[in-house]
Amino acid sequence: MKNTQQLARRIEVASGRVKADLVLKNANVVDIFCHRVIKCDVAIADGIIVGLGQYDGLNNVDCSGKYVMPSFFDTHLHFESSMSTPNHYLWEALAKGVTTLNADPHEIANVCGKEGIDYMIDCTADSPIDVNFMLPSCVPATPFEHGNAVFTAKDIKEMFATGKFFGLAEMMNYLGVIYADKEVLEKISTASICDGHAPQLAGNQLNAYLCTGIVSDHECESVEEVYEKVSKGMYVMIREGSQTKNLSTLIGAINDFTKRRLMFCTDDRYIGEVVESGTIQNCVIKAVEKGIDIYDALTIASLNAYECYKIPNKGAVSINYRADLIVADDIVPRNILQVYKNGKLVAENGKSLYTPKKVDDSKVTNTVRIKPLTASKFLPKFTPNKTPVMQILKDTVVTKTIYTDSTEGLNMCAAIERHNATGNIGTCWVKGFNLKNGAIAQTVGHDSHNITVLGDNTEDMLLAVNALGSEGGMALVVNGKVEYVFKLDIAGLMSSKNTHEVIAEHHTLMEKTKALNINPEIEPYMLLSFLSLIVIPEIKITDRGLFDVAKFNFFEE
Amino acid sequence: MKNTQQLARRIEVASGRVKADLVLKNANVVDIFCHRVIKCDVAIADGIIVGLGQYDGLNNVDCSGKYVMPSFFDTHLHFESSMSTPNHYLWEALAKGVTTLNADPHEIANVCGKEGIDYMIDCTADSPIDVNFMLPSCVPATPFEHGNAVFTAKDIKEMFATGKFFGLAEMMNYLGVIYADKEVLEKISTASICDGHAPQLAGNQLNAYLCTGIVSDHECESVEEVYEKVSKGMYVMIREGSQTKNLSTLIGAINDFTKRRLMFCTDDRYIGEVVESGTIQNCVIKAVEKGIDIYDALTIASLNAYECYKIPNKGAVSINYRADLIVADDIVPRNILQVYKNGKLVAENGKSLYTPKKVDDSKVTNTVRIKPLTASKFLPKFTPNKTPVMQILKDTVVTKTIYTDSTEGLNMCAAIERHNATGNIGTCWVKGFNLKNGAIAQTVGHDSHNITVLGDNTEDMLLAVNALGSEGGMALVVNGKVEYVFKLDIAGLMSSKNTHEVIAEHHTLMEKTKALNINPEIEPYMLLSFLSLIVIPEIKITDRGLFDVAKFNFFEE
Repeated sequence: MKNTQQLARRIEVASGRVKADLVLKNANVVDIFCHRVIKCDVAIADGIIVGLGQYDGLNNVDCSGKYVMPSFFDTHLHFESSMSTPNHYLWEALAKGVTTLNADPHEIANVCGKEGIDYMIDCTADSPIDVNFMLPSCVPATPFEHGNAVFTAKDIKEMFATGKFFGLAEMMNYLGVIYADKEVLEKISTASICDGHAPQLAGNQLNAYLCTGIVSDHECESVEEVYEKVSKGMYVMIREGSQTKNLSTLIGAINDFTKRRLMFCTDDRYIGEVVESGTIQNCVIKAVEKGIDIYDALTIASLNAYECYKIPNKGAVSINYRADLIVADDIVPRNILQVYKNGKLVAENGKSLYTPKKVDDSKVTNTVRIKPLTASKFLPKFTPNKTPVMQILKDTVVTKTIYTDSTEGLNMCAAIERHNATGNIGTCWVKGFNLKNGAIAQTVGHDSHNITVLGDNTEDMLLAVNALGSEGGMALVVNGKVEYVFKLDIAGLMSSKNTHEVIAEHHTLMEKTKALNINPEIEPYMLLSFLSLIVIPEIKITDRGLFDVAKFNFFEE
Repeated sequence: MKNTQQLARRIEVASGRVKADLVLKNANVVDIFCHRVIKCDVAIADGIIVGLGQYDGLNNVDCSGKYVMPSFFDTHLHFESSMSTPNHYLWEALAKGVTTLNADPHEIANVCGKEGIDYMIDCTADSPIDVNFMLPSCVPATPFEHGNAVFTAKDIKEMFATGKFFGLAEMMNYLGVIYADKEVLEKISTASICDGHAPQLAGNQLNAYLCTGIVSDHECESVEEVYEKVSKGMYVMIREGSQTKNLSTLIGAINDFTKRRLMFCTDDRYIGEVVESGTIQNCVIKAVEKGIDIYDALTIASLNAYECYKIPNKGAVSINYRADLIVADDIVPRNILQVYKNGKLVAENGKSLYTPKKVDDSKVTNTVRIKPLTASKFLPKFTPNKTPVMQILKDTVVTKTIYTDSTEGLNMCAAIERHNATGNIGTCWVKGFNLKNGAIAQTVGHDSHNITVLGDNTEDMLLAVNALGSEGGMALVVNGKVEYVFKLDIAGLMSSKNTHEVIAEHHTLMEKTKALNINPEIEPYMLLSFLSLIVIPEIKITDRGLFDVAKFNFFEE
């Protein structure tokens, strides 16, 4: 039931009989429906676009020579992966043109449970961005590792009842779906919207996954995979994270028929990259540089996502659409001059026009508890050509299982339970890092966020793990010396410091890490954090041992 | 909340572990998302498509060499204009591949009020087609004519509360919207979905109309009009009715960006045309013949409409989509072999596999009540070059106001109140019919359905009107003799006879009408019935007089 008085006022404004709240004058309006630029005024009332034509407002902003386009929707992300807290992240994302995002607080949920999620929600309270919290569906991701929280179907139902959640976050337990696990199906059936996570899932298995109503996937790594998923009714997110950048590969899947079913997301994107090149803005620019029509890129960045998530009247500069807008100096928004949310100016020249909220973080700090270790614990067994070795790859968190004659050139890797000091540890050999004379360790390790450590000698590995302390973070050891610790005091995942401090500290860590001569094609900490993510093919390490994703069980010893 | 046991079963079927209810084997599946044909089996459980691949079913239908595609959605129609009752209409439409339609029982509502609507709903009860009844928004269409029913905003609210209605039907009173009429806005604000009717509306007036949330328009008559409406957020219906055929003109508006916002509708289509060439099937075939890609045509005929009306999981042959399907011998569905609704075979080789319902029509018959007339009442005044004359046009119900020196070559036209025997009559001169030596009269006259009559002499006009009797219909008088009466016993709008009798009688009427030498480019009864529709530009006749649509008031005498 709409308010008729409000409707009447909008009609008066639209008709030109009453002044608009705000008019963007003489703008080049980017019409994503008809692929054209219309030179006109944009009249706004009650935060809604009510006029495209000639208008006069109580507030008039000259947009001569500037382009007005829909602002962006980041369809899937984990704030935690930015290493900044949501309050700081949102300030940056808004200035880069994002006004809606779907956030899955899956990482902190694994460390701090419901209190972690409440902290994240609290962080977003003052931001103009529409943050849709997706309820983590897989805490723990699987029964094969030890996190610090368990969300049962009953928990999920109770948490939905709080009204805090928009939908169910990525259903990573695809095998649970395919084999009709009762608990998994109960979780799905509670939600009206459920995001997917279905790397390489195809054929009848994909059919089984999709007949539960799961709507999206952000794990496509080939054009064929996009085609099959779109064919079968999914919306496919093209992801540009920090470690996983799929746009170059998937560009060939964007054409005049698939394009209405594609969206952009960042999933896991480090705050430094957000500040440097934006999030969805970066996707749009890259897509255009690779030959995609700018109107199509903008549609993928906005309208499609609102359609997928059944959020009406957003994602276009059209009548009765929400005035969530970007003003840029060109149709390709390399330079975002202003961002409007609900018809209010909220960011200008790269800066959001508010101060990020201060948030009580007392319930999400000092989360690291490990049992004392000895160096010998880090040494994996090795039988030539028998012991599975993890081969890492470029631009993906997918790994391959290989077998080698010797351990020469390999690194040692371990996952150590860090929530309840159980002393659990899993170890393995890894190829591709080429780390020499030291170790790196961190409290980030998807998705249970146990400690992950990688090194070429066990003494340095022990030193690095112990350097993490009770707050957690990322530690670097070179030749028997702790060179740097980048503290991540919030759940061992994020820094409570401001964005520029976070970036500076991270930069220092990265610079100092060069001493280890790691393969320059990879970001070692980000990649290491995904080597424990057992829902991604094909060989992974957890605190319980080495995992064979295809079998979905541990490798036999 | 979905049923997890049902989900589990679908997963079992999708996985191939349990047999499907039905499998369409070796089909050429038309993939409208990726514009390709996929040779595979279509597995169906619970009326839902759960598998595309290789499957075995309890029931297997060989579709080798055949094409499986989504069935059609007719987005806007008035059953009454078919001249058949809905029970008979639906039987034909289903066999022609329609499985969803939005019906506006506006015509019968004007004659019989709520009882008329209830009769229509009753007629649809046994049909497999999903009939979404739209609640007539404008009964009467305007205050400038006398119908037999008035639906106030309060009535509309009460009627929505019955749960019988899907949305509010075409808001024809666009001036009421633009001038923020309180009663009109209350009607709109009651509905979650409201269809539009905005012929030639543009610029700020269109903005005003659209900021009420009206979603669609079926009155576009130019490519530019489609562009502006799509730009401003509307879904535009391309209409192929009997009198109004817009596809040829609007074909140029279908391209790779607008195409997701277009739909097909029939609005007013005579049952004979439905039987001969289908409804939306005809739109698809015509579009392809005019160069539109078949995948795009099918998308416009199905998926787009479901998206517009926010009906999820329908309109594609995809996983978790409803098994509403057409099987045809070619990708262009000229020859529809089978129609499936909810995974059940409901029509085959042009015949629906059920018997149309018998419906109690006692409350919607014998509706014609007029005050006795004399021939002299039919003679309009005429002052050379002063009296507005109605010029009819080809392929449209839009008329033009012209002025002539004399009445030579003109016909006389009248609208006579026929619900409450008030004796009200409006008369005018009409150019373009070229009717000679007789008259035609009918109880169909949009939207109040007063009697409309056209002739070249007043005696024959009187004879024709009186021949309509209390049941109503269409009467033909040639040279002082009643040549034929085609009875429309249901509200004076539809025949209760079966489709073939209706077509035969209508054919006889048409053949005999040739004696009047009417302009062969028009269907005289259909066109005449729209000459009283004062929401269509630009000059119209009502029982209260000659109407100037632009001024939205009567011409001054």
